[in-house]
Amino acid sequence: MEAYLDNCATTQVCPEAVSALSDAVLKNWGNPSSLYKKGNEALAILDGARLSIAKRLSCGADEIFFTSGGTESNSLAILGAAAAMKRGGNRIIISSVEHPSVEGPVSHLEADGFEVIRLRADSEGRISEDDLFRAVNSKTVLISIMAVNNEVGTIQPVEAARRAVARVRSGAVIHCDAIQAFGKIDLKPSAMGVDLMSISSHKIHGPKGAGALYVRGGYKNNRSFVKISPCVFGGLQERTLRPGTEPVPAIAGFGAAVSALPDTRGELGRIYALREYLLRGLGSVGGIVPNSPDDALPYIVNISVLGINSEPMMNFLSSRGVYVSSGSACSKGMKSRVLKNMGLSGDRISSALRISFSRFTKTEEIDMLISGLRDGKNSIRRGR
Amino acid sequence: MEAYLDNCATTQVCPEAVSALSDAVLKNWGNPSSLYKKGNEALAILDGARLSIAKRLSCGADEIFFTSGGTESNSLAILGAAAAMKRGGNRIIISSVEHPSVEGPVSHLEADGFEVIRLRADSEGRISEDDLFRAVNSKTVLISIMAVNNEVGTIQPVEAARRAVARVRSGAVIHCDAIQAFGKIDLKPSAMGVDLMSISSHKIHGPKGAGALYVRGGYKNNRSFVKISPCVFGGLQERTLRPGTEPVPAIAGFGAAVSALPDTRGELGRIYALREYLLRGLGSVGGIVPNSPDDALPYIVNISVLGINSEPMMNFLSSRGVYVSSGSACSKGMKSRVLKNMGLSGDRISSALRISFSRFTKTEEIDMLISGLRDGKNSIRRGR
Repeated sequence: MEAYLDNCATTQVCPEAVSALSDAVLKNWGNPSSLYKKGNEALAILDGARLSIAKRLSCGADEIFFTSGGTESNSLAILGAAAAMKRGGNRIIISSVEHPSVEGPVSHLEADGFEVIRLRADSEGRISEDDLFRAVNSKTVLISIMAVNNEVGTIQPVEAARRAVARVRSGAVIHCDAIQAFGKIDLKPSAMGVDLMSISSHKIHGPKGAGALYVRGGYKNNRSFVKISPCVFGGLQERTLRPGTEPVPAIAGFGAAVSALPDTRGELGRIYALREYLLRGLGSVGGIVPNSPDDALPYIVNISVLGINSEPMMNFLSSRGVYVSSGSACSKGMKSRVLKNMGLSGDRISSALRISFSRFTKTEEIDMLISGLRDGKNSIRRGR
Repeated sequence: MEAYLDNCATTQVCPEAVSALSDAVLKNWGNPSSLYKKGNEALAILDGARLSIAKRLSCGADEIFFTSGGTESNSLAILGAAAAMKRGGNRIIISSVEHPSVEGPVSHLEADGFEVIRLRADSEGRISEDDLFRAVNSKTVLISIMAVNNEVGTIQPVEAARRAVARVRSGAVIHCDAIQAFGKIDLKPSAMGVDLMSISSHKIHGPKGAGALYVRGGYKNNRSFVKISPCVFGGLQERTLRPGTEPVPAIAGFGAAVSALPDTRGELGRIYALREYLLRGLGSVGGIVPNSPDDALPYIVNISVLGINSEPMMNFLSSRGVYVSSGSACSKGMKSRVLKNMGLSGDRISSALRISFSRFTKTEEIDMLISGLRDGKNSIRRGR
């Protein structure tokens, strides 16, 4: 048995997604843009997946645009909104604990002349609404705040962005990277005051290779309510916001994975119990401090095993089939910028481990992790 | 039985690709950036696919970069090279018969201030080397010429670009959209003098959702021999040229489909024979003129059924399970810009059909098409 506790990096593809993907590859392999039956069959798969995502976000199907994944959704949202808004101002506001796929395009825009304000996170990884209100001025073109932090699980006050924008009468576009939040908490972008929202398939038991961007009011042939421009150009796919033959198999799996998601509230109760179980176990091991706040999304528990670097511990655990990470998979083991910007000490950062659950996580996996951590501590210390 | 003769739009996923993709979804669903065994297994799939593509293009594996598909490869090549080269000049040269995924990003750059020269195609869809030589000046930053036209199969003199560039000592980047050529004719970008080459999985019996860009000399952490900048920003994937968790299942299928490709020369003989068989059949129907030149890639045969519009004929054929198209699937039935720029009459354009083969095409499918065209002509004429 293995204990896969790195569900923020990626997730096992659920049976429903496997089955939908297989059908798309074996039977419905037509081009959804083709005007005959074989094309229409593939198009119906896209329509079905779009509807299932729209239902989950309580939005219209015409507000959902497929991309190749979360990173592309974030780049499209940020670069696309900045390109469309550049005549309206120059300021971009993000948090200092965003994922590299938000920090990356924003840094690119900064090098291109945009003024970027990175809101400080407190020791729990949370930005303050006051800071946000102070930062937003009438020249603000874009605000991008993640719903849930990917390393520590902190829930950000995304809803405050709309109030801050309204106060100064800025036309700023509000983007939310909801990649780690989607499927885990209820998200209704219109109620949250969000214009653009990024989600990803492979974080919720869908296959890799599909993501989506919610665009409030939709987009069609260069017309949209929210100011956004395409970043890829070509055919008429995704109403020209994202041309290119759609990844039908991955989208089929994405849609099926979304439909198979449990009710978030019922599931959250189970995950809270799992976290309690984990925290009790960690307490019994000793010498472990949590880096995630108590009110974080319980799917993510970031800890530091004092005195033991992340890498040897990860390797020890991995040798027993227990998988956790030291932070974002996209950063491939580099020191965590999130923990640094939370003001944690170097020792805490270099010994950090991220444990992340999914709807398939079992207590047996947590047992394996706890005994792995206990043995790892002894084994690694003896080894020195 | 169905006759799928629209293989330029997309292709049936071959058994080898289905099997590789299934393995990637069911077993190797780890994140290739994760530093433990489960991640390494997924990484090995990417490495294997990269190697199999590199072998086919006679290039280094470190010169292959995965994207979400051909459209993204073309946008990355064109927008990425233009961004990196913009201090070196202002002129971009393409043919007037490029695919929308080349024409699209180039039009975008034109609106942004670049000077775009679109080389005229002759009645066979071919640009002239003389025109190309005249167009290239020292301020040329990018030349993008397709290897094989997607609507009529015309083979372009891509190799001339390198000579034209050398003559004026321009540092222009040379891009080739080889999406319809890959797997059908031998392509060795280094011998062709090409810096960037786009290819796609789903045109060669791989799944949708994966493509690749060949970058001469590779790219690593913002350093490269060929001037190119990323268009998506985030993690360290694809050596930062194309961040975002890789679509492992689609890439697995892509690699397997490439490995399963037959030897191009042997296969070309079979396809020439198929084309002969088709042309004889078309002759027996009567009232049909070819729009593809004799020396086109034999996989693509563009015809006009005089006096009968493409759409009713496509619908008639489709009702019998015979699938052809009126042009690029990405253009969803809009009038062909390629045929227009070849100087064909409106009647010829509005009655055009594109028939396209693959390595799985059988003579029985051509028989079905021929009898469909014959019956379609009678039925549609009577209907008026």
